[in-house]
Amino acid sequence: MSADAVSGVRAEDPIDFASLDALVRPRSVAVIGASDEPARIGGRPIAYMRERGFAGALWPVNPKRPTVQGLPAFASVAALPSAPDVAIIAVPAALAIDTLEELGSKGCRAVICFTAGFAEMDEAGAAAQEKLTAIARRHGIRLLGPNCLGVFNDAIQFYGTFTASFEKGWPIPGRIGIASQSGAYGTHMFAAALDRGLGTQVVITTGNEAEVALGDVLGWMAQAPEVDVICAYAEGIRESRRFLAALELARRNRKPIVMMKVGRSQLGGAAAQSHTASIAGDDGVTQAVLDEFGVVRARTTEEMLDIAYAATKRIYPARNTLGVLTVSGGAGVLISDAAEAAGVAMPPMPEEAQAKLRALVPFCAPRNPVDCTAQVTNDLSLITRFAESVAEDGGYTSILSFWSQTAAGRSVGPKLQEQMRAVRAKYPDRLWVMSMLAPEKIRDYEADGWICFEDPSRAVVAIEAMGRFGAAFAKPEAAAVPLPKVTLPETTPSEAVAKALLAEAGVPAVPEHAAPDTEAAVAAAEAIGYPVVLKILSPDILHKSEIGGVLLDVANADQVRQGFAILLDRAKHHAPAARIEGVLVAKQIKGAVEMALGVFRDPVFGPVAMVGLGGIFIEILKDVAFRRCPFDTAEAERMIRGLRGFPLLDGARGRPKADVAALARALSSLSAFAAAAGPRLAGVDVNPLLVLPAGQGCYAADAVIELAGEGH
Amino acid sequence: MSADAVSGVRAEDPIDFASLDALVRPRSVAVIGASDEPARIGGRPIAYMRERGFAGALWPVNPKRPTVQGLPAFASVAALPSAPDVAIIAVPAALAIDTLEELGSKGCRAVICFTAGFAEMDEAGAAAQEKLTAIARRHGIRLLGPNCLGVFNDAIQFYGTFTASFEKGWPIPGRIGIASQSGAYGTHMFAAALDRGLGTQVVITTGNEAEVALGDVLGWMAQAPEVDVICAYAEGIRESRRFLAALELARRNRKPIVMMKVGRSQLGGAAAQSHTASIAGDDGVTQAVLDEFGVVRARTTEEMLDIAYAATKRIYPARNTLGVLTVSGGAGVLISDAAEAAGVAMPPMPEEAQAKLRALVPFCAPRNPVDCTAQVTNDLSLITRFAESVAEDGGYTSILSFWSQTAAGRSVGPKLQEQMRAVRAKYPDRLWVMSMLAPEKIRDYEADGWICFEDPSRAVVAIEAMGRFGAAFAKPEAAAVPLPKVTLPETTPSEAVAKALLAEAGVPAVPEHAAPDTEAAVAAAEAIGYPVVLKILSPDILHKSEIGGVLLDVANADQVRQGFAILLDRAKHHAPAARIEGVLVAKQIKGAVEMALGVFRDPVFGPVAMVGLGGIFIEILKDVAFRRCPFDTAEAERMIRGLRGFPLLDGARGRPKADVAALARALSSLSAFAAAAGPRLAGVDVNPLLVLPAGQGCYAADAVIELAGEGH
Repeated sequence: MSADAVSGVRAEDPIDFASLDALVRPRSVAVIGASDEPARIGGRPIAYMRERGFAGALWPVNPKRPTVQGLPAFASVAALPSAPDVAIIAVPAALAIDTLEELGSKGCRAVICFTAGFAEMDEAGAAAQEKLTAIARRHGIRLLGPNCLGVFNDAIQFYGTFTASFEKGWPIPGRIGIASQSGAYGTHMFAAALDRGLGTQVVITTGNEAEVALGDVLGWMAQAPEVDVICAYAEGIRESRRFLAALELARRNRKPIVMMKVGRSQLGGAAAQSHTASIAGDDGVTQAVLDEFGVVRARTTEEMLDIAYAATKRIYPARNTLGVLTVSGGAGVLISDAAEAAGVAMPPMPEEAQAKLRALVPFCAPRNPVDCTAQVTNDLSLITRFAESVAEDGGYTSILSFWSQTAAGRSVGPKLQEQMRAVRAKYPDRLWVMSMLAPEKIRDYEADGWICFEDPSRAVVAIEAMGRFGAAFAKPEAAAVPLPKVTLPETTPSEAVAKALLAEAGVPAVPEHAAPDTEAAVAAAEAIGYPVVLKILSPDILHKSEIGGVLLDVANADQVRQGFAILLDRAKHHAPAARIEGVLVAKQIKGAVEMALGVFRDPVFGPVAMVGLGGIFIEILKDVAFRRCPFDTAEAERMIRGLRGFPLLDGARGRPKADVAALARALSSLSAFAAAAGPRLAGVDVNPLLVLPAGQGCYAADAVIELAGEGH
Repeated sequence: MSADAVSGVRAEDPIDFASLDALVRPRSVAVIGASDEPARIGGRPIAYMRERGFAGALWPVNPKRPTVQGLPAFASVAALPSAPDVAIIAVPAALAIDTLEELGSKGCRAVICFTAGFAEMDEAGAAAQEKLTAIARRHGIRLLGPNCLGVFNDAIQFYGTFTASFEKGWPIPGRIGIASQSGAYGTHMFAAALDRGLGTQVVITTGNEAEVALGDVLGWMAQAPEVDVICAYAEGIRESRRFLAALELARRNRKPIVMMKVGRSQLGGAAAQSHTASIAGDDGVTQAVLDEFGVVRARTTEEMLDIAYAATKRIYPARNTLGVLTVSGGAGVLISDAAEAAGVAMPPMPEEAQAKLRALVPFCAPRNPVDCTAQVTNDLSLITRFAESVAEDGGYTSILSFWSQTAAGRSVGPKLQEQMRAVRAKYPDRLWVMSMLAPEKIRDYEADGWICFEDPSRAVVAIEAMGRFGAAFAKPEAAAVPLPKVTLPETTPSEAVAKALLAEAGVPAVPEHAAPDTEAAVAAAEAIGYPVVLKILSPDILHKSEIGGVLLDVANADQVRQGFAILLDRAKHHAPAARIEGVLVAKQIKGAVEMALGVFRDPVFGPVAMVGLGGIFIEILKDVAFRRCPFDTAEAERMIRGLRGFPLLDGARGRPKADVAALARALSSLSAFAAAAGPRLAGVDVNPLLVLPAGQGCYAADAVIELAGEGH
């Protein structure tokens, strides 16, 4: 797979994810610090590869021994017959830097560094790690680690890892790949998958990420035939370019990513900080990025493996609907609850099909869930007719079949399996899921192509995830968002300048005029029409309401004159040093819904836009949506419609529907402005943005633009 | 256990839950419609009891055969040697009514009716079921079913059930009881528990609940030594008195109830309706009732069994704190996330203890989660010191120990187990939970007293539930809430009368006067002080704002006069038939937080009070709390503090803190009013209730009282 598959993300600068090939598919492996003891860190990779029959060359480096575990040893890196495809560094921290330099000089271009004692330890360690990075960059080495548990690729019996997990058993066939920042948790996932009979052919742990980061690993898996389904574990995303390109490549190549990103809680955030030098980042931003590419976030290891397991069927319905066939009405209700909680659509069966099923079994409940009742166990041919109707008439993309213990029945069991096998074979494009209490039957059904879960609620969660993957894979390429030309001022702009800049970029402002003196204010008010709002105008006063610098309901010329005086008085009192340019006279808009728009700069993902309903919705309920900038109006509208408070814009409480289209345009325009403005833009606050009824537009009533390096 | 143990719930009318003894612990069993075929419905109970050696008398009734499965058969109920402790009806629906009558005449006082074709089928079936109920009542028969799968009590080898689940295996020892409205789901739970090695000694399924309802079964289990932990499955609660008494008895006897109440979703509600004749009820009310008694609601079968499993240790910490000991930092973060999501407190270790642990293992993270790092596997004695410090210094009531695959390690495994066993034994009052990837070790650890979960997130959910049980068990008896004397008017009261009634009951109203004419209105306004609010006064206009019948900001005598005329005009126009009594002049209160209080009558649980923040919070976010009436101020305050929007009352956005104490008093008073008013009270709306800053009270600004049978 060539790197230009990701060119859509950043056409000018393609990323060659295949450059990790030597790390994961080496033909020759050197182990620096090789040990004769198979249980020691420097001994394990050699022991594993010898036991399993790695076909490539295996070169132990150990100055003190002529042989290591029966293999001829080399006294130094320099003594190696040639540059190995990959070298494993298993020497103490004090020697690791020199070893990497020697490997670079030898021509080695891929290194796995087990050695710990770098950035995870202290500042001296962090400085040492920077040296590793510099050496790797200079020589063009793809460096995994340091402080990592390594890699294995069971397809070629390459075990460049010192994990003890193989005590549990060797990997089994299966094309799940695990990419993990934590070695302990990555191998925990491997072992948990193994216990469940799931094969994880490739496991890569990134440790301190001095050079190779999670994004590189995800990108490699996104283009590698060894991997169909990717399980990822992250504590913090440290770089965005390769990470984003990897997510996009996986999406295009229809490889689902299930990710556990811990540190979701404040509690967890604290623990992550103490655990590694990770930047935990803002969880809301991470979530937005994962949503953007259809990465499904798992809440637990069990859920991660449930989803990965279901994904191995590679059936990802873009418009997922769930049909439920059950022998228990109670289970049907429970599954309906679970489907609603997960957000899976369960449309009813067509009326005619319901009538047909009712004719077959008078007391069945054929709507969906389709409860065929235990009746069918007396006449098993009915099962086929019910199942076919659910598939054919219902047309569901996913079908969950609940049989409790019936599937284990001595007489019913085998016939049931036979009939279900035939129906499944007739509709092989559907996601067929079996929920049953028959552990001894699971392998049989799996051999027939079924996904099996004992607990139907877990099945529903996995089914929902398949639909989310499908929707992301089917998402049309977003057209590039045209960026405006933005010239930021030298210093923090006044409200008026901020609004003018934004208005030019497509975020309209409330009609207003700056008035340097009283009579200019009156003239402006007369031109705009009463009532008006008066605001103090000063580049030094950013948050006017805090000093009483805003007057509402100013109804006539006299009140404008009074107001002008009041505002200047307050400004003098509260901010004596501020430069005062007069007042701003603005149209007072009533009956609008107050929204808040904003942009902030995420240290990893750059400018991120935010939208929420004004006031309490944001501050108390945190009811906001985030998205990386820039994005188009369709995406902006999705963000807006996803807000819990969206009904307020949609005609709730007898209000007219608000101009959501105009709001979406403003939000998208703001995102383009932020993307165009570059890193000097620290943040934008448009609060409130007043959204009028449909067709009447929306207007920024206040705006703040903050520049990098300037407080207020 | 005597019935007066539940007298606190309704002292005047104790419930004798032991009256179900004959149903669950019979010494003689008759099977009416007994079959010689062990696989038929009327054959299974006999086959099961014979195979397992039921010690009591077993009397098949079958007019066509001299023997049934080798036992002498009786030709009729009348021919039985005496009244059996329990009779099982397994005859067709057409014969069931007569059979029940014959059993009653014979003196039988406990009947299990397998027969289907009653209320679950159609209206004729419902009528037939009413006959069953009447016969049972007349004879004092405790009747289980009809349309139920029966009962089993493995303690005495009584299997009054036709479940096919025993194909999977016989019950194993263990004191979990299952109470289920659904037979299919009840036995599904039994089988799922069996697969997990959990013993469910008693299973009772209630089917159509013609006489014995879920409450009776829960109450029986709450006082029966056969059961320590109760798993319940409900589709709809049909009666409240016994149900509530059962929950209270279980709470007092420290028997945890885990309940799956399906029909949570709208989707699920529809399915529940089509499945049985259940009243799904309002899920919010059910949730409030379960919360009241500390019943933990499980979302999935897996979760139900996880919680029941943990509960079998019978350690229920009233103030639960979680200490986490982990060998993986990543897992520690993940567990912290899970704890925050579940709401389990994870306080940090004391500083000195942290210092002590840091001295033991320099790079450990000793805060909590306590990450002892893989270091400890090199010196296993460290494990004991870490674990003891977590228990002793941390003082946590629950300790989750995460060992991933380490516990399975050939060398580490046995030593780890030994050390952990010793530490656990030293602190036997703690809830010790092990999370590890070592399926083969689980039985060993369980034998040592550990609770074992592979997935740490599932462990956290179960740990949280133990704390909720403990808190409920430790909850002091709520003092009886004194009820006011309430005399409801004959017809729907006007706003003024409604507010006067409520004010008398302890829900203060905004200072206001009724004014029949203009000058009385002016006088009232002058007495109250400007600004005032004017409202149309009519018993026929309940929702004034809908006709423009409320004027705000009325600032002087002239405006009062104008306002009076405007309101009368609007009333004439919009409600020409309404009786107009003048206007209400009220103090206009500013700066208050608007709350909404209400009462409605739940068909099962009677009057239920509701509180929420006014406006959008209720209508869009459904941010409300419910509670059965009456309740005290402490409970009212808990409801208020649980609202998502509570920060608005608590000083958010620079507001002063609101008078939450006054609000709680008003809410509790409203609940007492509703409880005292009796079933003629259909509902109360106090909206808005204006809550002033702390110490300044709260005032109902509007109130509606609706009486049963009267619309508006």
